[in-house]
Amino acid sequence: MDIVVSGMRPTGRLHIGHYFGAIRNWVKLQEQYDCYFFVADWHALTTHFEDTSHIKENSREMVLDWLASGINIDKAVIFIQSLNPYHSELFLLLSMITPISWLERCPTYKEIKQEMSKDGKDLSNYGFLGYPVLMTSDIILYDAKYVPVGIDQLPHIELSRELVRRFNFYFGEDLFFEPEAYITESPKIPGIDGRKMSKSYNNAIWLHDDLKDVEKKILTMMTDTNRKRRVDPGDPEKCPVFDYHKIFSIEEEKRFIIEGCTGAKIGCIDCKRILLSHLIDFLSSFQEKRVLITDSYRDKDLYEILENAQNKALNKAKSKMKKIREALKF
Amino acid sequence: MDIVVSGMRPTGRLHIGHYFGAIRNWVKLQEQYDCYFFVADWHALTTHFEDTSHIKENSREMVLDWLASGINIDKAVIFIQSLNPYHSELFLLLSMITPISWLERCPTYKEIKQEMSKDGKDLSNYGFLGYPVLMTSDIILYDAKYVPVGIDQLPHIELSRELVRRFNFYFGEDLFFEPEAYITESPKIPGIDGRKMSKSYNNAIWLHDDLKDVEKKILTMMTDTNRKRRVDPGDPEKCPVFDYHKIFSIEEEKRFIIEGCTGAKIGCIDCKRILLSHLIDFLSSFQEKRVLITDSYRDKDLYEILENAQNKALNKAKSKMKKIREALKF
Repeated sequence: MDIVVSGMRPTGRLHIGHYFGAIRNWVKLQEQYDCYFFVADWHALTTHFEDTSHIKENSREMVLDWLASGINIDKAVIFIQSLNPYHSELFLLLSMITPISWLERCPTYKEIKQEMSKDGKDLSNYGFLGYPVLMTSDIILYDAKYVPVGIDQLPHIELSRELVRRFNFYFGEDLFFEPEAYITESPKIPGIDGRKMSKSYNNAIWLHDDLKDVEKKILTMMTDTNRKRRVDPGDPEKCPVFDYHKIFSIEEEKRFIIEGCTGAKIGCIDCKRILLSHLIDFLSSFQEKRVLITDSYRDKDLYEILENAQNKALNKAKSKMKKIREALKF
Repeated sequence: MDIVVSGMRPTGRLHIGHYFGAIRNWVKLQEQYDCYFFVADWHALTTHFEDTSHIKENSREMVLDWLASGINIDKAVIFIQSLNPYHSELFLLLSMITPISWLERCPTYKEIKQEMSKDGKDLSNYGFLGYPVLMTSDIILYDAKYVPVGIDQLPHIELSRELVRRFNFYFGEDLFFEPEAYITESPKIPGIDGRKMSKSYNNAIWLHDDLKDVEKKILTMMTDTNRKRRVDPGDPEKCPVFDYHKIFSIEEEKRFIIEGCTGAKIGCIDCKRILLSHLIDFLSSFQEKRVLITDSYRDKDLYEILENAQNKALNKAKSKMKKIREALKF
């Protein structure tokens, strides 16, 4: 069975953007592929090194959220990156053949650096520059054939493929697969202010949000700014609420909303009520499952929950590293 | 007992520059300190990644040279870096807090890069830039108090100290020692053409050189270029042969040579014969011990030779890494 590898950084609790952008896809992928999903706690350090006090707790909560979302611990191998030193070993080996210019020209590098510098955070660190090297290590250590990514991450996969070609060129033709991007459905999910959904913007719908709060958030959510009054016609394509409808509502409802909005036949609150009924359904269903998951793992720390999978990942990485060391003639 | 850590890259066989610049000091240090001497095979990759086929053999030969030089396997812990994944793990962790500018301003970075580019080698690699980060990891993983270095390497130690302060600031005051440079005697040992002794210049006196070859090398060795004829007075301070006398000859001989050379009373060959008697003594004594060492380890690969020490280093690194992970709250 082809192998899929994907990770998520434990930088905080999860919001619906995480769910529909990644986890929902993982749930599907685990049915068709040999999946390795990991807690990218080392990656969290690239941008959050000054305060690591929540990483452990975030990691546990995140994995429980995965499980509540339908990731099946008996199907997918879930593991913690930082408990597998082979990721760092391969990172080190790859670093030797990675031209600095490849990293500097990575589009996300300057983008994220600039974005974070607005928060007064200086990311001119060696580790942050090497983010795509560590990512490549995470992927190829498991002979992944596919890496589920959104379109914005294609340059990273391309960089991984280049690194693989270069490594294979030096150390042996067949050492690594070139991983392929598995372009997943990643619908646009803006925050309630219309900007990118993000903890730092305080505009997210969290998976663990109190349902009353969700109602408030949606009812005050930004809409098409050109529709100032009830009688003005609106444009759903310019309305963040309609982005949500694309995810949650059925065709008939969407048609009703397009007609009602563009013809000023319904108000924004009418539109939002339709969304809310779906969103509340979704969240309450998730939260019910999450309670069960929370209960069943109540007395276990994350390592205890994942022990079997962790060992499986470790063994797979170990046997790959053996081959890599041989190829390097070390 | 205070801890000393030092490593050497297995990029080829050893010459007398290695011996008098490093190993001789190690032999002394092992009597006073808890010493960890390691085969820096990962470091060898920073500049020699295109061809790793000799690293394993070089590593074994190098360690046997250490033993023949007087490093005592029962006193010092000798180990192979690449068999200790904790070095790479700490490298990764340190990378997160290392400003790129600290690495770029490291004087040896541009120097070596320029030097290697003359040989058509492009060292603009991520791993080479991170050389001092890996070096810091090697040192502080063992709580080293001292690192034996020549004066040219002081900036590296200063960088390590800065990294330690930064890491401790984020993750806990007392996590790491600031290592101190242990400035060792490192006499000037030019190659036989007067340039820096180096394999690539083909100007080295190797520890395993055939003694007949050594005679030829010394007799054709460059001297003070201003002393063109026997009757011209020479200046020992401008003569690479006299650099060797400073290492090998006794005071009386040096006085005799200074007088003879500056007064044109002796020829260069006379001077070289005096050096040769000492150099041949030194090399033949080394080579005799080396034959014994070679014989006694004839059927063992390097890992078998070092197994105990390797495990000792691994355990020490492991228990330190446990503390580091705790400090990071991972």
